[in-house]
Amino acid sequence: MDRERLNALLDRHASGELGRDELLEAIAVAPFVDLGDARVDTHRALRVGFPEVVFGAGKTVDQLARIATTLAGTGVNVLITRIAPDTAAELRARLPQLEILATPRLAVWRQVPIEPRGRGPIAVVCAGTSDLPVAEEAAAVAELYGNKVERVYDAGVAGLHRLLASLDVVRRASVVIAVAGMEGALASVVGGLVATPVIAVPTSIGYGASLGGVTTLLAMLNSCAANVTVVNIDNGFGAAYVASLVNRA
Amino acid sequence: MDRERLNALLDRHASGELGRDELLEAIAVAPFVDLGDARVDTHRALRVGFPEVVFGAGKTVDQLARIATTLAGTGVNVLITRIAPDTAAELRARLPQLEILATPRLAVWRQVPIEPRGRGPIAVVCAGTSDLPVAEEAAAVAELYGNKVERVYDAGVAGLHRLLASLDVVRRASVVIAVAGMEGALASVVGGLVATPVIAVPTSIGYGASLGGVTTLLAMLNSCAANVTVVNIDNGFGAAYVASLVNRA
Amino acid sequence: MDRERLNALLDRHASGELGRDELLEAIAVAPFVDLGDARVDTHRALRVGFPEVVFGAGKTVDQLARIATTLAGTGVNVLITRIAPDTAAELRARLPQLEILATPRLAVWRQVPIEPRGRGPIAVVCAGTSDLPVAEEAAAVAELYGNKVERVYDAGVAGLHRLLASLDVVRRASVVIAVAGMEGALASVVGGLVATPVIAVPTSIGYGASLGGVTTLLAMLNSCAANVTVVNIDNGFGAAYVASLVNRA
Amino acid sequence: MDRERLNALLDRHASGELGRDELLEAIAVAPFVDLGDARVDTHRALRVGFPEVVFGAGKTVDQLARIATTLAGTGVNVLITRIAPDTAAELRARLPQLEILATPRLAVWRQVPIEPRGRGPIAVVCAGTSDLPVAEEAAAVAELYGNKVERVYDAGVAGLHRLLASLDVVRRASVVIAVAGMEGALASVVGGLVATPVIAVPTSIGYGASLGGVTTLLAMLNSCAANVTVVNIDNGFGAAYVASLVNRA
Amino acid sequence: MDRERLNALLDRHASGELGRDELLEAIAVAPFVDLGDARVDTHRALRVGFPEVVFGAGKTVDQLARIATTLAGTGVNVLITRIAPDTAAELRARLPQLEILATPRLAVWRQVPIEPRGRGPIAVVCAGTSDLPVAEEAAAVAELYGNKVERVYDAGVAGLHRLLASLDVVRRASVVIAVAGMEGALASVVGGLVATPVIAVPTSIGYGASLGGVTTLLAMLNSCAANVTVVNIDNGFGAAYVASLVNRA
Amino acid sequence: MDRERLNALLDRHASGELGRDELLEAIAVAPFVDLGDARVDTHRALRVGFPEVVFGAGKTVDQLARIATTLAGTGVNVLITRIAPDTAAELRARLPQLEILATPRLAVWRQVPIEPRGRGPIAVVCAGTSDLPVAEEAAAVAELYGNKVERVYDAGVAGLHRLLASLDVVRRASVVIAVAGMEGALASVVGGLVATPVIAVPTSIGYGASLGGVTTLLAMLNSCAANVTVVNIDNGFGAAYVASLVNRA
Amino acid sequence: MDRERLNALLDRHASGELGRDELLEAIAVAPFVDLGDARVDTHRALRVGFPEVVFGAGKTVDQLARIATTLAGTGVNVLITRIAPDTAAELRARLPQLEILATPRLAVWRQVPIEPRGRGPIAVVCAGTSDLPVAEEAAAVAELYGNKVERVYDAGVAGLHRLLASLDVVRRASVVIAVAGMEGALASVVGGLVATPVIAVPTSIGYGASLGGVTTLLAMLNSCAANVTVVNIDNGFGAAYVASLVNRA
Amino acid sequence: MDRERLNALLDRHASGELGRDELLEAIAVAPFVDLGDARVDTHRALRVGFPEVVFGAGKTVDQLARIATTLAGTGVNVLITRIAPDTAAELRARLPQLEILATPRLAVWRQVPIEPRGRGPIAVVCAGTSDLPVAEEAAAVAELYGNKVERVYDAGVAGLHRLLASLDVVRRASVVIAVAGMEGALASVVGGLVATPVIAVPTSIGYGASLGGVTTLLAMLNSCAANVTVVNIDNGFGAAYVASLVNRA
Repeated sequence: MDRERLNALLDRHASGELGRDELLEAIAVAPFVDLGDARVDTHRALRVGFPEVVFGAGKTVDQLARIATTLAGTGVNVLITRIAPDTAAELRARLPQLEILATPRLAVWRQVPIEPRGRGPIAVVCAGTSDLPVAEEAAAVAELYGNKVERVYDAGVAGLHRLLASLDVVRRASVVIAVAGMEGALASVVGGLVATPVIAVPTSIGYGASLGGVTTLLAMLNSCAANVTVVNIDNGFGAAYVASLVNRA
Repeated sequence: MDRERLNALLDRHASGELGRDELLEAIAVAPFVDLGDARVDTHRALRVGFPEVVFGAGKTVDQLARIATTLAGTGVNVLITRIAPDTAAELRARLPQLEILATPRLAVWRQVPIEPRGRGPIAVVCAGTSDLPVAEEAAAVAELYGNKVERVYDAGVAGLHRLLASLDVVRRASVVIAVAGMEGALASVVGGLVATPVIAVPTSIGYGASLGGVTTLLAMLNSCAANVTVVNIDNGFGAAYVASLVNRA
Repeated sequence: MDRERLNALLDRHASGELGRDELLEAIAVAPFVDLGDARVDTHRALRVGFPEVVFGAGKTVDQLARIATTLAGTGVNVLITRIAPDTAAELRARLPQLEILATPRLAVWRQVPIEPRGRGPIAVVCAGTSDLPVAEEAAAVAELYGNKVERVYDAGVAGLHRLLASLDVVRRASVVIAVAGMEGALASVVGGLVATPVIAVPTSIGYGASLGGVTTLLAMLNSCAANVTVVNIDNGFGAAYVASLVNRA
Repeated sequence: MDRERLNALLDRHASGELGRDELLEAIAVAPFVDLGDARVDTHRALRVGFPEVVFGAGKTVDQLARIATTLAGTGVNVLITRIAPDTAAELRARLPQLEILATPRLAVWRQVPIEPRGRGPIAVVCAGTSDLPVAEEAAAVAELYGNKVERVYDAGVAGLHRLLASLDVVRRASVVIAVAGMEGALASVVGGLVATPVIAVPTSIGYGASLGGVTTLLAMLNSCAANVTVVNIDNGFGAAYVASLVNRA
Repeated sequence: MDRERLNALLDRHASGELGRDELLEAIAVAPFVDLGDARVDTHRALRVGFPEVVFGAGKTVDQLARIATTLAGTGVNVLITRIAPDTAAELRARLPQLEILATPRLAVWRQVPIEPRGRGPIAVVCAGTSDLPVAEEAAAVAELYGNKVERVYDAGVAGLHRLLASLDVVRRASVVIAVAGMEGALASVVGGLVATPVIAVPTSIGYGASLGGVTTLLAMLNSCAANVTVVNIDNGFGAAYVASLVNRA
Repeated sequence: MDRERLNALLDRHASGELGRDELLEAIAVAPFVDLGDARVDTHRALRVGFPEVVFGAGKTVDQLARIATTLAGTGVNVLITRIAPDTAAELRARLPQLEILATPRLAVWRQVPIEPRGRGPIAVVCAGTSDLPVAEEAAAVAELYGNKVERVYDAGVAGLHRLLASLDVVRRASVVIAVAGMEGALASVVGGLVATPVIAVPTSIGYGASLGGVTTLLAMLNSCAANVTVVNIDNGFGAAYVASLVNRA
Repeated sequence: MDRERLNALLDRHASGELGRDELLEAIAVAPFVDLGDARVDTHRALRVGFPEVVFGAGKTVDQLARIATTLAGTGVNVLITRIAPDTAAELRARLPQLEILATPRLAVWRQVPIEPRGRGPIAVVCAGTSDLPVAEEAAAVAELYGNKVERVYDAGVAGLHRLLASLDVVRRASVVIAVAGMEGALASVVGGLVATPVIAVPTSIGYGASLGGVTTLLAMLNSCAANVTVVNIDNGFGAAYVASLVNRA
Repeated sequence: MDRERLNALLDRHASGELGRDELLEAIAVAPFVDLGDARVDTHRALRVGFPEVVFGAGKTVDQLARIATTLAGTGVNVLITRIAPDTAAELRARLPQLEILATPRLAVWRQVPIEPRGRGPIAVVCAGTSDLPVAEEAAAVAELYGNKVERVYDAGVAGLHRLLASLDVVRRASVVIAVAGMEGALASVVGGLVATPVIAVPTSIGYGASLGGVTTLLAMLNSCAANVTVVNIDNGFGAAYVASLVNRA
């Protein structure tokens, strides 16, 4: 409820257009649709600038269908993340307009054209082939938000020349998303080479002492490069979301 | 064995009604039925005010059937928690009087009517749709113990208006159960908004750095709201049990 | 900002008593005093029923003096917790009306008499002599909030008879606070013996595998007694605060 | 290789009965049979007093069959622990003389009668029905080593009377094995009630903050009862092994 | 070594101005001054846009003096972070032109005026008074980098109105830095209320289960608000550095 | 309260020697002396066979003096463990009959001669010179309980011959206490060489990845030798206590 | 890009053989083949002396086939590690020249004969039969790199004579790889017995407090033998790789 | 006790030169001097090729003096590591022939000249100035063992050019020791650039999520460069010791 909207409501109340009870209701009731087990935030696009994104993991096909339909009813593009292959197939059978992106495990319901925006490209750099699902989640989401994306994949620091060969691409970006598992050194090395914010995404790739990505996460938080911030393990979506915010003029 | 009961036993002994051996037996032998692999606590209702609840996880259908039947033999309502869908189906085939609640994974054997009690409603607030199984375990158990329950679901703090829209409901409750995964901020925000005890239930919803709910648990234990106490991860039953105790006049 | 107060403000606005800007201000501005480095919550007593409590650890004597004086200016009793002995001495030199409680490290500024309230006594049980500072924090705070307190100290489960000897006292309480370090078994044993809520306070007493109280904390969260909820390590204040809420009629 | 045996070998060497190479061989070569992927310790019975026990988890049916046959060839009883149901069935098809104990997941090849020994019975106490597999592993192994075993099951501290009712049995034992999951308080309570060594076995029973038994383990290591030592999580075998050593005259 | 500079060097080599050895040297030798125990990165301002910042913790007065003097020799402003009070006093005795900021533990050597830059103000929000040193490190560093800073201090979520009262200020910022200890819920709540990137700084404020800030860190990484990225515990400098990068047009 | 004593009390009650109230009192009141902040367990010697031991860490000189005097009043030997040098000196000034053992940080008040007992010697083996305080705590306590003790110090496995040279001594013992820090391999190696119970004491000796002894503790719990049980980090007293129980005929 | 190669490029540029753009390209472009989702490092054999090894876990059959074919196209031997049985079978169906080693889960594409090299044999010692897959990964990889390998398996320290019997073999090696799970004591014991580097490989063999190998890892890092270095849990490949480097003259 | 020496002893016994008791003594008694609280391993130089090194931390001046004198009595060079400044000063007052190296906290008693040995230089690379004490421990120890050492300090990956400028030096070494704190990326980057073994030493430099070096340690163990092995946190000595073994012809 922002100040302008409150002001407008008070004007309509003062003019008699809006009764006391309606005014109270309007102030108190939030802009969401209550589905019982989900309160779908239909005004999020207004409030934070992007349509609400549905976290698909752990939701049933039925829940996803109801939530997606409700959101789509407001006319926006709908994005579902972390959708398992089986769930995606079943959901698409019910909602054929859904587009499924297999590698990044995304489902998209496009209703309005995506307009290009952003001060420059977003570079998504990843360390190894196994990091691709997370890197692609970041890249695809960034594209859905209207950004141009440059992909530099399998460029881990054990073969530094693979990264250096794409240095120009990385340096031209206005934001860099660095995706890596294991020791996560890619974030620090990229961080030291560019003058832009680097959003580090630790992945759960590794074994033993990688502790399911916790080691990578902690290592990235200790990056000796000061331009690095970190999101949760495997959170390609979050990185793309913030990168999009940063990239907006 | 409380003092009054001991006194009564001693009276009967003094009057000759009870022999020495019987007295010793009565003092030493506990009020339970020994099934060999389980000592069913048939007097728990007297001792702590509720019928014994059977923790269903890890028990066989056979063990559950024997324990439930033994408890039911004392005339009380019987509650089984954490019962897997398959086990529930098999158990119900043997004990058709069982009522199965799917979402909260409960089985109930009702024998006596549940009398409404409590100073006011118990509010169960949860952060996201994925928290529903735990929230419903709390809500259903609280209802089985005679409380009126208000459900406020999918009201996580990232869309604060969804919570604020139900603030009246939450504030009217005599106890609040706050169920959340991820960073668990709901507990602190609710804690700061109400003047009643808040029982926080961390859920295992999340990924990566949520560490299976341990992060949520630790965060809730560090709540800056002083009216928050915490139960184990996913322990909706425990929260409802304590809320019921608090709500009794 | 609750609904009634909003209603009243709108009435005054409708009657012309309150201008538009003043109305907006009243809705937006919070009931606190901004000291620059602290926003003193002067209306907390109204909102959650107790005066605000100042967490003393890590605050300078100067900060504590300014905050305490601001709160005292609203006419309430002021409570400072976790105040180091040196800080307490210096603070009292500046505010002689402060009363210092050494063992529980509390400072109290009494302005209004504490009225007895609560459905029954609160029992504070602790396992060992080393747990006393935390147990006393809980006991003293509960008394400051108007509760009658029963102390049962050094009653750890390795000598069970020490606890059983005070069982009547513990059972008569309307809430029990169980304070223990090491393996924290006291919480479970007490929980199994009473029919009331038990608030468990793990202490940092122990060494080696006690991990500064984390082991105790985790153990208490796994209590096999369903009536146990838990607060942070050494958080005697929080336990007393919740116990007071529970104990209010 | 102990001093007496070395002395004897040197005598035989001095007398010419044993050549230099044979002496070196006898000193260097260990009393085991090398199967390539396993060095079966055939002299363990002599060295530490019990036949070697085969840890079944992670070994193939073929490996187990070869190892068991080799050990059996020395005339001793053979014990396989942690044997999965499928593996047990397959192994028994190949070695029909094997006896399978389902609950404790043991396989036994009896060749010599088990002679009763030990200063007194070993009591195996467990907290809940779910702890039975571990408790039975301890009990069955202790019996295989010739001890009399007293079982006290489902005697967790939340219903203390269930334990106290069997206190005589527990106190008559010469060693107590306390098996519990969750907060593991049983170890401390039993420890405080008896004057004998208590071997605590944490189990992986629990959820959330039990961390797969690590919480129980750490709690037991912090027991306030001084007569408690601890073995690894779910290690019923180890507890029985040590209890047998303690119980031998 | 960027492509343009390499191109220029090759031009000078082609024209004979630069010999082969000098060319190799220029390509290989990095733009730093080697002090033996420190390689001072004198060209960092060119490469990543800000002067190099010296991490003061664990360095001797002598090391700091030499490094600062070397950097100052290149004409830039020099910033030392995490400088202990004693070290700061000694260092200032040797370098009187240093300006010491006590609360954020910074030392600044100003040589060139700081020009205002950035698309809008940076808001620094903190949860409690104890978070001030970290919040001030962030605020002061952001100002040194030419940003306008809005401070909203002691606005933790347990008294939500304190934050909401400053919501306009927070929403007008182009980036928000959210500083909090304990459960760190502030990051999620702020994240849900604004449409800009939020950089969360966990602090080590708390006790017991806060684990020196690790709980706060993990909680923030699990924020349910998608616009939150995280830096290391107490890393106010890093947050300000990234916020400045984001804020640059 | 054991059965025989209860029987005796009931006899006296039946004979009129003991009134009803006195009987109840005798059943309920525990054999301890309540000092307010400590419940001194004066009958522990009867119940578990050894005089109560006072854990000195964290207790004031005054508390220790009162507790020691109370215990001494029952005529037993009194043992204080973990007593800091300063506290020991002050305490001895008040109770000159105390004997202070510096290396193991013990204080002893001898009143009755210690009678030799036990089936054989207890061997205390330690890995390095730095483990001495813990090893000496174990050795001295075992001696105070009447055992003969064999010390084998600085016999870590990196120089295996140092251990093997004392193998006879270790094998002759009826129980072995193995004290080690770092990787704690000593416990497994000793365990494999003897046929008696081995009580492993991890020490906090080490640095970095030793995590204050937690690594050693966990390693010892995973010993591949089945005759090893473990006590808490640095708990030499506990090991000696259990060893004494095991060693009693 | 090493100095000599740069020198040569500059010569060719100076002589006009290589244009400016081609020179820049040659300096910037790395020696790898970009497959889109993988940058195959075809020059690694030149750079670090061994052909690139493909980490098979988590890669699809298609990705592995493309990467292996690309590498094989450069004429080297190709090694795939951590290949699951199903994947190996499918891959071999497509690339019949692949040789599958089942126990160590390796796939090998031999194109050039492996020449014996190294100063002496590499000894691979493992503690138990369950450690075989890791030990065999180390042994097979070391052989593929041209080393002679001595295997000493199932030689854990609980039966020390099994290790001592092979001491000569172990001492003759120029490097030792010690593979163990549980408490990992083998590394320290072997370390103390040889005068060569010992590379310790913790395995995930164990249960409960072994924490999936983390305990073993930490224990090995605390080895009291100074000649021990450590690789990640189950990393037999890494140990063999480093051992081969050490063994080269 | 190796086979040859045993053979020789047996020859002398056969020839009558050595009596039975002397033979047994020679076989059983280890080559150490027993000081009571320390068993000084005087033959270690023979057994593993270097004189025994004394770990100074936690030992008293008196213990160090006795151990050093005993070792020196065998004619070798003596090295004490981790010696605190105060201890070093006191020890030197008693043993003036000791040489104290302040930064790496070493004390050296030189008696025999150090002969240069090794296939090439050992490079010690460190990331930051704060890593110097550990790096210098490694460098100084390597020099004491006769190696030539190349130091490349303050070459962290955030300013990659500082490392690349010294790449020739690093590549010429026969072994590299990589010393770094924080995220420890230096180990992976160096590992990818050289064809020799890299021994990674994590340091405890960092704060917050560095967890006292544990993060760095875990990250290095997950290095994507296969030629990296790891030693304990801050263990410069161990790295130098192994590097010396590797470097010996």
